[in-house]
Amino acid sequence: MSKLTHIDGDGAAHMVDVSAKDDTIREARAEGVIHMAAEVLETIKANAMKKGDVLATARIAGIMAAKKTSELIPLCHPLALSKVAVEFEFLDDGIRVEAMARLTGKTGVEMEALTAASTALLTVYDMSKAMQKDMVISDIRLLSKSGGKSGDWTAE
Amino acid sequence: MSKLTHIDGDGAAHMVDVSAKDDTIREARAEGVIHMAAEVLETIKANAMKKGDVLATARIAGIMAAKKTSELIPLCHPLALSKVAVEFEFLDDGIRVEAMARLTGKTGVEMEALTAASTALLTVYDMSKAMQKDMVISDIRLLSKSGGKSGDWTAE
Amino acid sequence: MSKLTHIDGDGAAHMVDVSAKDDTIREARAEGVIHMAAEVLETIKANAMKKGDVLATARIAGIMAAKKTSELIPLCHPLALSKVAVEFEFLDDGIRVEAMARLTGKTGVEMEALTAASTALLTVYDMSKAMQKDMVISDIRLLSKSGGKSGDWTAE
Amino acid sequence: MSKLTHIDGDGAAHMVDVSAKDDTIREARAEGVIHMAAEVLETIKANAMKKGDVLATARIAGIMAAKKTSELIPLCHPLALSKVAVEFEFLDDGIRVEAMARLTGKTGVEMEALTAASTALLTVYDMSKAMQKDMVISDIRLLSKSGGKSGDWTAE
Amino acid sequence: MSKLTHIDGDGAAHMVDVSAKDDTIREARAEGVIHMAAEVLETIKANAMKKGDVLATARIAGIMAAKKTSELIPLCHPLALSKVAVEFEFLDDGIRVEAMARLTGKTGVEMEALTAASTALLTVYDMSKAMQKDMVISDIRLLSKSGGKSGDWTAE
Amino acid sequence: MSKLTHIDGDGAAHMVDVSAKDDTIREARAEGVIHMAAEVLETIKANAMKKGDVLATARIAGIMAAKKTSELIPLCHPLALSKVAVEFEFLDDGIRVEAMARLTGKTGVEMEALTAASTALLTVYDMSKAMQKDMVISDIRLLSKSGGKSGDWTAE
Repeated sequence: MSKLTHIDGDGAAHMVDVSAKDDTIREARAEGVIHMAAEVLETIKANAMKKGDVLATARIAGIMAAKKTSELIPLCHPLALSKVAVEFEFLDDGIRVEAMARLTGKTGVEMEALTAASTALLTVYDMSKAMQKDMVISDIRLLSKSGGKSGDWTAE
Repeated sequence: MSKLTHIDGDGAAHMVDVSAKDDTIREARAEGVIHMAAEVLETIKANAMKKGDVLATARIAGIMAAKKTSELIPLCHPLALSKVAVEFEFLDDGIRVEAMARLTGKTGVEMEALTAASTALLTVYDMSKAMQKDMVISDIRLLSKSGGKSGDWTAE
Repeated sequence: MSKLTHIDGDGAAHMVDVSAKDDTIREARAEGVIHMAAEVLETIKANAMKKGDVLATARIAGIMAAKKTSELIPLCHPLALSKVAVEFEFLDDGIRVEAMARLTGKTGVEMEALTAASTALLTVYDMSKAMQKDMVISDIRLLSKSGGKSGDWTAE
Repeated sequence: MSKLTHIDGDGAAHMVDVSAKDDTIREARAEGVIHMAAEVLETIKANAMKKGDVLATARIAGIMAAKKTSELIPLCHPLALSKVAVEFEFLDDGIRVEAMARLTGKTGVEMEALTAASTALLTVYDMSKAMQKDMVISDIRLLSKSGGKSGDWTAE
Repeated sequence: MSKLTHIDGDGAAHMVDVSAKDDTIREARAEGVIHMAAEVLETIKANAMKKGDVLATARIAGIMAAKKTSELIPLCHPLALSKVAVEFEFLDDGIRVEAMARLTGKTGVEMEALTAASTALLTVYDMSKAMQKDMVISDIRLLSKSGGKSGDWTAE
Repeated sequence: MSKLTHIDGDGAAHMVDVSAKDDTIREARAEGVIHMAAEVLETIKANAMKKGDVLATARIAGIMAAKKTSELIPLCHPLALSKVAVEFEFLDDGIRVEAMARLTGKTGVEMEALTAASTALLTVYDMSKAMQKDMVISDIRLLSKSGGKSGDWTAE
């Protein structure tokens, strides 16, 4: 678009061109943790939270959020995800979530995995907040990515 | 719905009834942090990230995500938010985001503030991940809530 | 809009004006059934379906669909639902779903209850279709409505 | 994700992996019926319903709902549909809808066809409910599917 | 949020606070025009366009887009619209659309009326573009607004 | 679907079949203008509008709207866009927006470019309307398209 005055200069947001990239199988895994009081954790383990089954609901929320990633993150490409999974692990003081996303396509799925993990954790918060308001969500990070030209990557 | 066999028992997820609650002005504030390398932080400060203006984009993403909260968090009520704002603060090793949501309505807006903060941080990650993949999002938590029958609350 | 030629005459679709209606508590209940082979029903009861927990997933799908009703049904008003619930009952040859929606507002929530029931049933189909393709969804109907000027109504 | 404790065991919902499947032309057809009083049917035939043109609106609603299937059905994959069509047939006591969906992709489009049919019928209900509340939606079922490894299938 | 460094200063986007505004009946009307070749206009008038009924489809698109306004325009408040209508008028060289939106609420509905008009015109373009690519959409503007503290306004 | 009575005849809306089309790189550019008073234009240039940074917000809105095109325009196919960009140019009496969309796929992206341009202009209106209500959006049109069987096209 050379005939335009680029008002905002190089700082202008745009969705990066991936049309020339290859369709390869790409996968990403991400994790995050929600820290909570022992009493809250026990209530979730006993599936006794008043609002309903916390982990089943958070899992569905995470999977559906992965599919909404390009609606949430402005410069993400819309993707035809081929698989999404969300798993939980009980820690001493909270719950760890791990999400994975897979795609045969032209761009990576890191944001889909991170969005799934983040939304699953927010859903745990929502369903438990009547018991504890000061739960903290932390350590949301990418665990690994594979596929694509830039090669594989695994967090240390 | 007494005539139904409640197959899943008390653990069944449901959206809590708020129809008898009063319409009051309710407000919530939430925060979160993304930790990153000094080089990434400097690039954001200089508004020199290749994908575009990181903070302006993340702010819009946060505001728009607050409006999508009830689509993301399964048991959240749809709300007619009256105000949303997202602000950023540079830390030594990252960026802190603070989000607030306000409503005249029957239920609190904690999840809207938390979703705004979380999505703004994910957007910062998305726009910067070409430089650093192991950024970590942490300390997403509620700062305060006011309005409604349960009274005001402020994090310690 | 008297100055317009009304091209399509009285047949033109439009969203009915409800601005003069009172804000009252309105509620609707709807039901529907999915018929299936005994083997499929037993697999759901045993929570052994390969795709995961059928009823927990269908319940969340129904609740979230109720919130999407005005996006799906063109002339439905956007509503701030105050409660949604979805319950299941095992029949000899299938599963009955019952959905209810409640609102303090200006228009009824029949479509929200029907959309919740319908989407919950479609989700049961989706999660079980690897076992049986010719399941049939039937008897989706309104059970009752209350609130508003037109008064209460209960199906015979 | 072998290092995780699979809290919910085999019953945990997940989106099935289709990344290794071939891109083939896949098609599905589905149908359903709404039963109504003669007077309501005549009003629709005469295009004299107060809310507007019932069948034109229901057709658009069905087509748009097919595109929303992966937002409604939690474990459905997002798909780039290549064709959707919705047709109506007048019965003695109601209206039959038939929907078809087509895709060049890695997974079937049964849910898209079923969602289109179901939403078109709900829209007929919505636009006619001022005349009759006890209309019943029935016999929503898959008529046929073709394409993919599992081969073609036609309802008896 | 006084304790934050306001990084972007006064230029930072935010959703304006309307929580203290009164709930009044608010209405807005907007219009726009699409200019086209005589042959295209005649095909629309004859309802003979290959893709289907242009005006019925554009009307539904406009109504549904009004309900999506707060998802499209970043700083718009989510609103519980009480009425939306879209009408068409044949001009010598095109079609004029007029849209109106009504609400009992705390903020105006100008953007809802403008979004409905704009989307209806884009839909006319989409359904007719196989015949003519250089149609032009023009004169999208607010016609009037009423309700709220700032009083009524009518375009000259 | 030959066994159906085609109630609405040839006028029935349907999504055109593109399943047999080739996957090629397709691109479209579109433009539009918003006319405004000198005072409003100066305020935008100075980035001094009360609601925030007008052009950064309008750019994000345009990019995100391109991704929503198939939700807005009833017969548009859902597309996995590979690039979207939105640029602005200051005119003497307003702002011109130019949008481009790119895709490797089976159908053109004209509507995506037009929807991006249109939504960016509506966002400029929204953020400036407190200063001037009678701004006019005009000259929304396709500039060029390339790729696909029908060949390239450029506006005169």
